[in-house]
Amino acid sequence: MKDDEKILLAHGGGGEMTTQLVRDVILVGLGDTATGSLDDSVVLQVQGRIAFTTDSFVVKPLFFPGGDVGRLAVCGTVNDLAMRGAKPIAISLGIIIEEGLLVSTFRKIVSSIAAAAREAEIKIATGDTKVVERGSADGIFINTSGIGEIADGVEISLGGARAGDVVIVSGAVGNHAIAVLAQREGLAFETTVESDAAPLNHMTSALVSEIGNGVHVLNDPTRGGLAMSLNTIAAASGVAIEIDERAVPVDSAVAFAAEMLGLDVLTLANEGKLVAIVKDGNEAKALAVLAAAGARPAVIGRVKSGGGVTIRVSGGGTRILEIPYGEDAPRIC
Amino acid sequence: MKDDEKILLAHGGGGEMTTQLVRDVILVGLGDTATGSLDDSVVLQVQGRIAFTTDSFVVKPLFFPGGDVGRLAVCGTVNDLAMRGAKPIAISLGIIIEEGLLVSTFRKIVSSIAAAAREAEIKIATGDTKVVERGSADGIFINTSGIGEIADGVEISLGGARAGDVVIVSGAVGNHAIAVLAQREGLAFETTVESDAAPLNHMTSALVSEIGNGVHVLNDPTRGGLAMSLNTIAAASGVAIEIDERAVPVDSAVAFAAEMLGLDVLTLANEGKLVAIVKDGNEAKALAVLAAAGARPAVIGRVKSGGGVTIRVSGGGTRILEIPYGEDAPRIC
Repeated sequence: MKDDEKILLAHGGGGEMTTQLVRDVILVGLGDTATGSLDDSVVLQVQGRIAFTTDSFVVKPLFFPGGDVGRLAVCGTVNDLAMRGAKPIAISLGIIIEEGLLVSTFRKIVSSIAAAAREAEIKIATGDTKVVERGSADGIFINTSGIGEIADGVEISLGGARAGDVVIVSGAVGNHAIAVLAQREGLAFETTVESDAAPLNHMTSALVSEIGNGVHVLNDPTRGGLAMSLNTIAAASGVAIEIDERAVPVDSAVAFAAEMLGLDVLTLANEGKLVAIVKDGNEAKALAVLAAAGARPAVIGRVKSGGGVTIRVSGGGTRILEIPYGEDAPRIC
Repeated sequence: MKDDEKILLAHGGGGEMTTQLVRDVILVGLGDTATGSLDDSVVLQVQGRIAFTTDSFVVKPLFFPGGDVGRLAVCGTVNDLAMRGAKPIAISLGIIIEEGLLVSTFRKIVSSIAAAAREAEIKIATGDTKVVERGSADGIFINTSGIGEIADGVEISLGGARAGDVVIVSGAVGNHAIAVLAQREGLAFETTVESDAAPLNHMTSALVSEIGNGVHVLNDPTRGGLAMSLNTIAAASGVAIEIDERAVPVDSAVAFAAEMLGLDVLTLANEGKLVAIVKDGNEAKALAVLAAAGARPAVIGRVKSGGGVTIRVSGGGTRILEIPYGEDAPRIC
């Protein structure tokens, strides 16, 4: 298909034109990251426990500094698997296209999917493509579901935090949401903020292999940010979490933009950061492992007995870090 | 949440309002068909080979005689797994809602998902919900992905047809597409045509357990209908398929509507029918097994050596049954 061609309703009909779109654009773009011909289903050999997850991506705009909807779709699902201590093995690709999307735009997204899949070392194993009329979608929506294998003895879940544990974040927070919002609203800051979208499976795999059961919880603070992530962990584990505002890494351009937009950086989505809660005494090793994997990690707090999340603020005193209510930053993933 | 409430963009923000929508509408509606709290991922115990599949559903209108988008979303993915001879064990639920959808409408769809899941005896294991602005989607889009276990020794694939095999269809074709088209276009026929949307896993499981490796191919003729299904099988298996037009079961109301709309019933989508290609000599048993499972099956043709699909037409003579090109009936699934 030609780059300046537009995708038509008929490309979603399941006939010859769908085959053409899948073959000429999707399979060519995915290259060796696709297994076979993306048939209705794929057969995989697995053993023991698997993690299974799904996510839809409706980010607006489709392209932003540091990423696009394709990169997000791969990283989001890979990371959900990685946060269970699973080794991601295959993801599916469910695409809904708005009629009129340029083939060149679609090619860019598919090529970004392939690049992220290579980075994460996973395969695109099965797919589905639908096309809806103009005005019935917004460019393209992508669903990815994923399967990962969990090695024997690995027990990582949101409910694993214990009083005394140490709370670590793998790097500066808020970059993804600010990158998307700035792009969408046409805001220019002195420094361009880039999305942190990245697969985290190599990082979690290093943590698990170096620290083993000293890793109690892994979570990626996406929608709702660090505030949602920590509250979810505290509730699932039946513990309190206390963090220190000054210890949370925030890039200055992100802090400035959040201030300008009236947003709390702790509620902003990340797509390439993780929270690791480790058993007391493992924090130095965890920081070293994360740093060796390219992160700039920091200890931000402690797990206590009780419930809820509190934050020691810069000026002194503490406040409750609440679950975000609605949505400050819509459609950032 | 109240029935006359509208779903807002903020319900997709990942915060407290998302939790409320998931808890009050999705989890309540799914009841015992949901495992746990539909966390970011679920851990499953599996063994050996699994089938993995994905499908997005963008049917318009959302409700039609015999089904709705929720029923389709469960049946479509269950059936893709069943056609590999797999026993479906879990599906994911990725939902994209257009802002303004009534809670009562969403509740109806969720309850239909639960009913279909009960019928298929599978669990909804993980989920994700996004909300986009009015005009950026069309009511609701649903992606389901699924995992099924394939028993040792079961080898069913599109490439399994051999010359001499017998081609069986499990019942009348074209009903689903006509049901959706008639509803969308406001067409009234003397008899209301209902969609055949149904999970086929119990039927395929009976076929496999009764006939074993005598079942060479299973396929559900969805988008592109019987024409697409048979052509796909012929190409994947490197064989020719010859069918007899008079042997293909078609309900008279469907035949009449297709005639009126200028559509070829052999290219119309089904959501509760299967094509089974069995080794010569197994056809009587296959028909009996299918009939016992509630189908009205028929032998429609034979596999030959060569390539392509031909059809002996009613008036005598044969024609090539081609792969449908574009889309006669858009957004029927």
